[in-house]
Amino acid sequence: NQFMALEEQFGKLVCIMVGLPARGKTFMARKVCRYLNWLSIPSKVFNVGDIRRQKYGPVTHEYFDPNKEEGRKKREEVMNAVCHEICQYLEKDSGMVAFYDAANVSRSERAQIHEHLSSCLGHVQVLYIESVCTDTSIIQMNLDEVKLSSPEYADRDNAAAKADFNQRIAYLERNYEPLDFEHDTDKSWIKIHEAGERFVMSKIQGYIQCRAAYYLMNVRLRPKTIYLSRHGESEYNVLGRIGGDAGLSSRGEKYAEALRDWINKNAPKDLKVWTSTLRRARATAAKQAYPVAIWPALDEINAGACDGMTYEEIAEKFPVEFALRDADKFGYRYPRGESYRDLVHRLEPVIMELERSNNVLVVGHQAVLRCITSYFLDRTSAELPYEKVPLHTIIKLNPVAYGVKIEKFKQNIDAVDTHRERPSNVNPNRTIDEALATVPSHE
Amino acid sequence: NQFMALEEQFGKLVCIMVGLPARGKTFMARKVCRYLNWLSIPSKVFNVGDIRRQKYGPVTHEYFDPNKEEGRKKREEVMNAVCHEICQYLEKDSGMVAFYDAANVSRSERAQIHEHLSSCLGHVQVLYIESVCTDTSIIQMNLDEVKLSSPEYADRDNAAAKADFNQRIAYLERNYEPLDFEHDTDKSWIKIHEAGERFVMSKIQGYIQCRAAYYLMNVRLRPKTIYLSRHGESEYNVLGRIGGDAGLSSRGEKYAEALRDWINKNAPKDLKVWTSTLRRARATAAKQAYPVAIWPALDEINAGACDGMTYEEIAEKFPVEFALRDADKFGYRYPRGESYRDLVHRLEPVIMELERSNNVLVVGHQAVLRCITSYFLDRTSAELPYEKVPLHTIIKLNPVAYGVKIEKFKQNIDAVDTHRERPSNVNPNRTIDEALATVPSHE
Ligand SMILES: Nc1ncnc2c1ncn2[C@@H]1O[C@H](COP(=O)(O)OP(=O)(O)OP(=O)(O)O)[C@@H](O)[C@H]1O
Ligand SMILES: Nc1ncnc2c1ncn2[C@@H]1O[C@H](COP(=O)(O)OP(=O)(O)OP(=O)(O)O)[C@@H](O)[C@H]1O
Ligand SMILES: [Mg+2]
Ligand SMILES: [Mg+2]
Repeated sequence: NQFMALEEQFGKLVCIMVGLPARGKTFMARKVCRYLNWLSIPSKVFNVGDIRRQKYGPVTHEYFDPNKEEGRKKREEVMNAVCHEICQYLEKDSGMVAFYDAANVSRSERAQIHEHLSSCLGHVQVLYIESVCTDTSIIQMNLDEVKLSSPEYADRDNAAAKADFNQRIAYLERNYEPLDFEHDTDKSWIKIHEAGERFVMSKIQGYIQCRAAYYLMNVRLRPKTIYLSRHGESEYNVLGRIGGDAGLSSRGEKYAEALRDWINKNAPKDLKVWTSTLRRARATAAKQAYPVAIWPALDEINAGACDGMTYEEIAEKFPVEFALRDADKFGYRYPRGESYRDLVHRLEPVIMELERSNNVLVVGHQAVLRCITSYFLDRTSAELPYEKVPLHTIIKLNPVAYGVKIEKFKQNIDAVDTHRERPSNVNPNRTIDEALATVPSHE
Repeated sequence: NQFMALEEQFGKLVCIMVGLPARGKTFMARKVCRYLNWLSIPSKVFNVGDIRRQKYGPVTHEYFDPNKEEGRKKREEVMNAVCHEICQYLEKDSGMVAFYDAANVSRSERAQIHEHLSSCLGHVQVLYIESVCTDTSIIQMNLDEVKLSSPEYADRDNAAAKADFNQRIAYLERNYEPLDFEHDTDKSWIKIHEAGERFVMSKIQGYIQCRAAYYLMNVRLRPKTIYLSRHGESEYNVLGRIGGDAGLSSRGEKYAEALRDWINKNAPKDLKVWTSTLRRARATAAKQAYPVAIWPALDEINAGACDGMTYEEIAEKFPVEFALRDADKFGYRYPRGESYRDLVHRLEPVIMELERSNNVLVVGHQAVLRCITSYFLDRTSAELPYEKVPLHTIIKLNPVAYGVKIEKFKQNIDAVDTHRERPSNVNPNRTIDEALATVPSHE
């Protein structure tokens, strides 16, 4: 086939993390990985600690002592196992980006990994991502937040765990050779200083490398809250029609007021509000006590030829299209409209801005908020189009450890259900009744 | 008004360029400026050389001699004039981003500028953009390419001009204090080394700052060619219908073959081909001897409620909408569709990728290619929707000096004209004949 997606024009990539313990390597690897997966670029993090624990169980600081032969041997075996898994993933499992998530503090370790990968993958693109952090308050916070609760220290008390971890850091510090312009002139690398205060980049050329660098520049560590809400119930929701540009129902109007009151009571005062260009979203956001930024990228998925129809009408007029969509809801593109995959790409700047911004309320639409919540919750593309985003419900997201905490606040104002589950029969020759089996009730 | 565009949530910004002569400061300032203007963020470059020449005419290297009092005084007056113009632009002329385009090599100069700007603008965001280049071959090429032909040396022969310019560089080198982490800890800055080999960034926080940094990371200086072509004439083109998803006319089929032959004969062999998801574009690209990447962002402008109609039908069914579009073609959004402004934002990743890539052929659509060529040609948003992109014509773009060279190759296969000029009457109460005065003929 002569045709392909743009991403397929780019080669496979291994990102090798570099840095002392508790510098956010796993955090950043997982975050970039989640972002790329969401953009339909298959990516996976290979964490050395996990693979080591599978082989040898939890270890203490002695494992990292550069003077002990036993640890050295085991470390080399683990390295080989990780390289092997990465090659498997990129060659056989059609992965595109692999993260080698370990400290990789010495030049010789990094050279060994590169050599191993080249020998099994041929010419492979490598990007080093190093985190340097000298701010002891950040490091101690990292220890408390994620290290002491990690599987490594499941059975140890906090003080012992902390002492052990600090000794591990001390061992690695002895061998630490940061990336620099003198020794790593021809390599491609990004160095993050002090959790994003400063960046140094060398030979960043490829598409994914540039995107990853830009993404990391936008990531902020300070705590924040993201609020997501659909518009209030619309006149089209009541009729079971999709798309369109209808106004709010009277219950939808009430919700817009409830949302304002809830936000005024619960949200921080430096809140930004964003919404789409569509009437139902603007009418909902207009009740807010804040200025509102209109963002066309937030418009609901474009249902093209099916815009404004009920599911019953679609099932009757376009039975094959309707079944094709059920068979692959993420990839299916409405005739003259969009797919969820298209929508994700349209929403990419919104995600970037959510990462960069402080507290934000997004007043959006069902499909749009499915994409946004799925990014934060690391949903697969199969799960994404079925994520539950009911009307008249506020979703609150807070970043914690490697992910986000999600809370939902259902407001006490009735609304129709607009969530249609995947029916069991997705064959184009199914009956109309089978096609409509999961359609929620409406007027 | 409670509603605004996202960009309006961000504050005003001054970008202060830093670096020795012939380091690409003007090049980068103009490029970023053009990119931001294209994205509807009003931006302007203030070139100190231009403002100096207005005041004092061409100067020789003595003007830059740090030991000569006369030059020092004049330089300070020019600095004040530039700051004054920048303040005027950001305060009175509703500009959003101003570039202070000069060498600004010493810390004291930079501090003076910052102080002057703060005193007239209050708290103002400042981003320093420094270019460091030690590769003498790049610098000498810069001299030959842009410096010796500049207005400064209009009346001098090349050898004398070169000697003078090198002396100017030598004077500035004496005072050169690059940005560094020690003295410029709290400032926001980007440093580009060796024309993009390496980047160093400090405290890059704001939206425009992050975007500018990302953009500069994608800019490549090596020569390249971008080919743009619309799909071959479609069945809808023949009928005078807009939008839709029709196939090619038989003349359109012939053009697709002519395009392939022309490309095979004229384009470099490492060419990449991109096209949209629409049938007429895919059918045109399918004839190419290359793999083709499908990019939904390249789809034609969505005419929403008017999709598939002729201009005659639109004028009859939606006379007011039709007039509103003529009155502001860039800003006008079709009901349930897109505006040119929306389209520009959708095409932003395409521009980024065109900057980063080598040689590319884009098989696109009229409105899409209007946006792309307007980016390269620095068209205003009023001009953009009227840019001429005829059918069956290959557009070839090559970067030169601060802009691009454009050539058009009309193929010898007839096609309808699809370009409708702005009619002289854009009032909603105009007659149908007035509305249709400029519609090109069709079947
Ligand atoms: N660039 C960064 N610098 C410092 N801390 C960061 C950075 N990015 C994220 N963090 C913080 O680091 C914590 C997570 O640490 P993480 O487990 O990722 O460290 P690690 O480098 O993988 O350590 P280890 O080597 O023990 O696996 C999070 O609490 C996050 O807030
Ligand atoms: N980052 C860069 N480093 C070095 N050269 C560059 C860079 N970016 C662009 N160039 C090249 O620089 C040339 C343009 O030089 P330009 O006039 O912008 O220099 P300048 O720094 O503004 O010099 P002056 O101080 O005399 O105004 C172009 O030919 C372009 O290819
Ligand atoms: Mg880790
Ligand atoms: Mg210049």
